[in-house]
Amino acid sequence: VAGHTKTLRIALAQVDPTVGDLERNGELIAARIEEAKGLGAQLIVFPEMVLSGYPAEDLWLRRGFLDRVGERLHELAAFAGGICALVGFPERDVAIHNSLAVLADGEVAGVYRKLLLPNYGVFDERRYFEPGTAPALIEIGGVRVGLTICEDIWFPGAPASSEALAGASLIVNASASPYHRGKGSEREEMVVQRATETGTAFALCNLVGGQDELVFDGHSLVVSEAGELSARAAQFEEELLVCDIDLAVEPRADGDDPGLDALPGGGLVPVIARIDSTAPGAAAEARVAELLEPADEVYAALELGLRDYVAKNGFERVLIALSGGIDSALVALIAVDALGAERVTCVSMPSPHSSEGTRDDAREIAANLGVELLELPIEAPMRAYDEILDRHRDDEGVDLAAENIQARIRGNLVMALSNRSGWLVLTTGNKSETSVGYATLYGDMAGGFAVIKDVPKTLVYELVRERNEREGRELVPSSALERPPSAELRPDQLDEDSLPPYEDLDRIIELYVEEDRSREEIVEAGIGAETVDEVIAMIDRSEYKRRQAPPGVKITPKAFGRDRRLPITNRYRG
Amino acid sequence: VAGHTKTLRIALAQVDPTVGDLERNGELIAARIEEAKGLGAQLIVFPEMVLSGYPAEDLWLRRGFLDRVGERLHELAAFAGGICALVGFPERDVAIHNSLAVLADGEVAGVYRKLLLPNYGVFDERRYFEPGTAPALIEIGGVRVGLTICEDIWFPGAPASSEALAGASLIVNASASPYHRGKGSEREEMVVQRATETGTAFALCNLVGGQDELVFDGHSLVVSEAGELSARAAQFEEELLVCDIDLAVEPRADGDDPGLDALPGGGLVPVIARIDSTAPGAAAEARVAELLEPADEVYAALELGLRDYVAKNGFERVLIALSGGIDSALVALIAVDALGAERVTCVSMPSPHSSEGTRDDAREIAANLGVELLELPIEAPMRAYDEILDRHRDDEGVDLAAENIQARIRGNLVMALSNRSGWLVLTTGNKSETSVGYATLYGDMAGGFAVIKDVPKTLVYELVRERNEREGRELVPSSALERPPSAELRPDQLDEDSLPPYEDLDRIIELYVEEDRSREEIVEAGIGAETVDEVIAMIDRSEYKRRQAPPGVKITPKAFGRDRRLPITNRYRG
Repeated sequence: VAGHTKTLRIALAQVDPTVGDLERNGELIAARIEEAKGLGAQLIVFPEMVLSGYPAEDLWLRRGFLDRVGERLHELAAFAGGICALVGFPERDVAIHNSLAVLADGEVAGVYRKLLLPNYGVFDERRYFEPGTAPALIEIGGVRVGLTICEDIWFPGAPASSEALAGASLIVNASASPYHRGKGSEREEMVVQRATETGTAFALCNLVGGQDELVFDGHSLVVSEAGELSARAAQFEEELLVCDIDLAVEPRADGDDPGLDALPGGGLVPVIARIDSTAPGAAAEARVAELLEPADEVYAALELGLRDYVAKNGFERVLIALSGGIDSALVALIAVDALGAERVTCVSMPSPHSSEGTRDDAREIAANLGVELLELPIEAPMRAYDEILDRHRDDEGVDLAAENIQARIRGNLVMALSNRSGWLVLTTGNKSETSVGYATLYGDMAGGFAVIKDVPKTLVYELVRERNEREGRELVPSSALERPPSAELRPDQLDEDSLPPYEDLDRIIELYVEEDRSREEIVEAGIGAETVDEVIAMIDRSEYKRRQAPPGVKITPKAFGRDRRLPITNRYRG
Repeated sequence: VAGHTKTLRIALAQVDPTVGDLERNGELIAARIEEAKGLGAQLIVFPEMVLSGYPAEDLWLRRGFLDRVGERLHELAAFAGGICALVGFPERDVAIHNSLAVLADGEVAGVYRKLLLPNYGVFDERRYFEPGTAPALIEIGGVRVGLTICEDIWFPGAPASSEALAGASLIVNASASPYHRGKGSEREEMVVQRATETGTAFALCNLVGGQDELVFDGHSLVVSEAGELSARAAQFEEELLVCDIDLAVEPRADGDDPGLDALPGGGLVPVIARIDSTAPGAAAEARVAELLEPADEVYAALELGLRDYVAKNGFERVLIALSGGIDSALVALIAVDALGAERVTCVSMPSPHSSEGTRDDAREIAANLGVELLELPIEAPMRAYDEILDRHRDDEGVDLAAENIQARIRGNLVMALSNRSGWLVLTTGNKSETSVGYATLYGDMAGGFAVIKDVPKTLVYELVRERNEREGRELVPSSALERPPSAELRPDQLDEDSLPPYEDLDRIIELYVEEDRSREEIVEAGIGAETVDEVIAMIDRSEYKRRQAPPGVKITPKAFGRDRRLPITNRYRG
């Protein structure tokens, strides 16, 4: 009997659940199942852990939470009639598993358990889960579909290769794959590679949305067995991507299949569910979303990360200390794009060291963005502290305590406004500053969300220029882009008095922090040994500050926080 | 041939290394090896990861660091002549392992790799290490000794049982087992249990010292094959514990042993090193240190945690905001005991809401402890903020912003003093406050080390009373112990206006935070449902504050921080 082709209509439900919100997440899933049914889909795939949200961290260890997840899953099964739904959830059995439920014919027809559990970078899955013990297939209208979850397909081989050998024409992958610059393209290349290796089609449904420091970029995909892209969902937006996939189906005689297929290597690939289904007649048109340009991609990640942090934590409004410098300008731009100008308040807090130029720029930026701007000069509390601390106003030398007091007065004022009104304070420090500790703890670091903490200064400029260009006018005036960076905490202060040029600094940060290179390797990369030593020492001794920093959006391959875990007490240098 | 008895002189080097300080840690190891040789020891056991410190976190992933560790280990081997030394280190091979080197005859004679890698609670060992594949024996003067590392013996069975079956008379365990209340006794009972199960003697050498949030309590042990305690080192102090162990040795004909012993189950237990050695004639007297009383044990943990944080991070002096309340009094007591009065400065920062009683108590406590006391009244900056924020001084209602401003002025002042002089600021919040967020971010939470952040309020009282009793006089006056707790941020404010009585609060925290009980289970435990709901909601919504808190010493089975990882964005309640 020769093989033949069957068509499967699949829906990838790229949704944005909220960690812990089992009611709302269930509603989201039910609504998408209904929508997919209306569109004639035979199979709908949800992201990894869609029911609990990802990562739910130690919630995944709580018995009460897991029990409620189990109940919610069975409630959702009722919606799966005339369609098969694959729903990611934390499964409590003897151990806890990262699982994918097969909902069909109104019940939980089967469960696949993730085999490869990442425990590096931002991932701690071995803390929570035991790996599954076998690959799994389902059969829909005679088409065999292999099940996988995220990490399962990032390396060649099992389980995808086993499922392909056991007759899968399509391998689906439910992912919660977090974003960093260029990750979407890496992921797409990886799926094309897997399809080519196994000779099967792939459909990957990725989570979308922000969760504390992580952003999930969506960018769900269908790739044909020839390794060609058939469909692509939007980046950073919810979408129900529907696609008809033509699949080569292996011939199989009736009764030839006991439910378990032996692999050549001796393993078994169980068929955990069989669902009757026929593809609808008229073909669905598959969308192939265009990819964002690199700078726009980062900007969209920051926007989504902020929007979701605000929405999921129930804030009405955000407050930004607008200095007239480039960092706070970028944060204000992102906030207005994410939330609308009516939900953004800016506050300018000039000191005697603030230049006319930055004060004017702050006003101009606020006016261009159409946001409210408060002005609270800080000279009076500066005097009050000087008196207590017995400092003379004419003592104009470098005095770290006096510089920090200014930043801390500003921190106190934004927090007072926040305490009165419940607004979320956004901090404006970038990754370059965060790396070397060029920031005041409890001062400019005071706030609830650090939008650009993983954005190096050189990229801050790029993002602002791009945003101006997209707007077709100078939302941020060129004076702000061209002025040498300064904290303005003493007269004529410039960042470059304390730091190497940002091009060099950012290059060292990339090598030392993101790529874990040693001092010697960085010097070999062509940066002066003295500069390298200074910067590395600054990075190492600022760990204590970063520990007390608010969370912010990861956009690089290695962000500070859960991604890079170094002790504060650490005598190693190099 | 009947079995006979041999005596092995063993030294357990309970030392306090510093994370990352390979030079100093190596010197510490070399010095202890020399000392043990002088005492006639045949075998010296160091703690798990003594060379890198524990936990070295992502340092363990850095190639340059691991290479330097390897070099240092070979340098140390030179000291191992006439003695066998077991030294814990991170081993870089194809993967990275948590290993124990056997140094003998001037070289690295063999390596054992930890089999069971904990990845729960405060542990992330699967992030760094691959488990070993086999148990291991060494033979010293004809005595077989089984090697294990920490977690390896916390459960019955392999590797200890395999090593016993393969002829080990003694099993050594190199540990870095962190402290919580009562952990030392639990560990001791566990070792007795293992000895009884396997019929072999056990010698456990535990790390001692503080590392960021963890304290290692030492309390190294030797237990006989009959399960009786033969020797015990001090808790919370360095010690070289030397003990002669009489061991039943199985007869073994020459040439009967190819270096690999097959187990009944089919596994192999390799003998990875053979060392010629004879026990010296005169018996060493084994010390059995007395155990500390429960309150003294916690106090000693806090003292060591603080002392090591200060020493290993190179601070000269600490600064404490002394309010006259019980929490800051305890922190001052601990600081003086840990560092000496001459390295502690206190500062009293009264506001118009501060009572005469607390101000007097602050002066009395400082005088009793013999520490410097600065007084910086904060009324002037309070006025300056009121003016900027347009608040009237006669507006005496509950105003969170105004209350927080006071705490933040104090935070600014201690940080200004710290910036000027490099002193480490100790914060004074307890676990009860930390749990429910009854603290001001950037205010009383501002500082570098939160000594008592894991100490519930009810235990704070107990520790102060015990310390007074130990002194034989009221270091902390009874007025401070008897005054109802108050933050004194507005007139007549009491903690119990906002919080349930501390007995109830601490009980809920124990059940919800430390034991992960659900709302229902806590209500069933006999606490009013309304109180439970209020407290749980406060705990859940304070996660964002805790993320920005300084580190402090873990003394309970579950501390906030790496021990309990919950998302900030989290809609689950229950």
